Amino acid sequence: MARFSYHPQLQAGTTVRLSREESCHLKAQRLYPGSPLFLSDGKGRVFRGTVQQDDGREKLVTVEEQLSMQVPPYRLRVCQAILHNQARMDWLVEKLVELGATEICFFIAHHSVPDISHRKIRRLERIVVEACKQSGRAFFPTLRSFLEWEIFKEFLANENGLVLVCEPAASATLTETLREEKISECSLLIGPEGDFTDREKTELGNINRSVFVKLTNTVLRSETAALYAACLTMSFLEKMDEDCPENFWL
Amino acid sequence: MARFSYHPQLQAGTTVRLSREESCHLKAQRLYPGSPLFLSDGKGRVFRGTVQQDDGREKLVTVEEQLSMQVPPYRLRVCQAILHNQARMDWLVEKLVELGATEICFFIAHHSVPDISHRKIRRLERIVVEACKQSGRAFFPTLRSFLEWEIFKEFLANENGLVLVCEPAASATLTETLREEKISECSLLIGPEGDFTDREKTELGNINRSVFVKLTNTVLRSETAALYAACLTMSFLEKMDEDCPENFWL
Repeated sequence: MARFSYHPQLQAGTTVRLSREESCHLKAQRLYPGSPLFLSDGKGRVFRGTVQQDDGREKLVTVEEQLSMQVPPYRLRVCQAILHNQARMDWLVEKLVELGATEICFFIAHHSVPDISHRKIRRLERIVVEACKQSGRAFFPTLRSFLEWEIFKEFLANENGLVLVCEPAASATLTETLREEKISECSLLIGPEGDFTDREKTELGNINRSVFVKLTNTVLRSETAALYAACLTMSFLEKMDEDCPENFWL
Repeated sequence: MARFSYHPQLQAGTTVRLSREESCHLKAQRLYPGSPLFLSDGKGRVFRGTVQQDDGREKLVTVEEQLSMQVPPYRLRVCQAILHNQARMDWLVEKLVELGATEICFFIAHHSVPDISHRKIRRLERIVVEACKQSGRAFFPTLRSFLEWEIFKEFLANENGLVLVCEPAASATLTETLREEKISECSLLIGPEGDFTDREKTELGNINRSVFVKLTNTVLRSETAALYAACLTMSFLEKMDEDCPENFWL
């Protein structure tokens, strides 16, 4: 069950009109005029609110006092080469959100599928919102997609934190690297099913602060590798999360 | 693409008849009479083989020399309360197999769905085989389902290794526990969406070698918790896996 309703612009003392999708969910949760509810703006702020008189398909909600501000004290960016199979992308996005990734990037590598449609991106965005609502994450991860390798590379080079490139032939393991480096921000890079090309590996190696890391002794599917890497990294970043303001709906 | 074909009884120098399902896959992989292939018996043994003359829907294959024996030197048993949603169970089984679980158990707890049909179990068994073939795991994990809590409890009590009960309110974290104990065998227990009841927790606490462990600071969906716990545990068991005979299709 969703733990809150989403509206991008919230301010105490105002009334907002929820989208049709969000309004539909209120009905499914049996929230009717007068029912109290939680609201989040997806930027970490959580408010108390009350469902107003019915106004057709888009429900009105009064925004009351702000209850908390939940911004993760870490940044975990998971960059996954676009997968051919949409269902696997859907699963991955849902699980990464639940695990606590703060940014999910899809990119095109030489061996990945050549395109991702606008419709697919919209679908993934909806999955982000739903997974956040389900797991009580008021801070929504950013979803990005890069249709050009060069632009993706430039983006990575300008971001802070380690760039951990998952590569079966690497000598250092992800766990060793995470244990040695005290990180609060990093990017995990997972290549396509056919792996990165040698040229792509050289280019990634040229990025400042990039480290090639091995995940397991067996070959994992691309999206399983992303999940495994995210779980391990989160277990290191999680310690920082403890200093975060209390997650009041736990 | 599947890395081998499966037949439960293999012996060098014999000819075996593959099941219809396995035979279909040969066609999809463009393996015709005379093509060489790998075969596994699901117990860790891998053989070289050759597709024989076509014999209708069930292909004949000659079993040649044994190439390797892959039995994991650890035991990771993941016990998950049966989920209402079949797609989530399917997904979880696939991921646990890829990650290297050696046993997957489904059980019924007070807050889980009351039953699992024979058809569903058959489906999960097929997923185990497919995921093993995909990820090159010649040792197939055992799949068990317990329709009675008492029987499940008794089973757990008779198994070796720590019983790690995942519980959001526990004081020790899974990582801390794994770091302190040098384990080569353990059972991870993940409760249903509505968590274990107090009585169930007491009963689990009474099992010898049971430890309650916390996973993350946020609440994870039941199957995400199983995945997270399995990833972290595998990263500890993985070190043992390094001493395993070389995985020759890497």
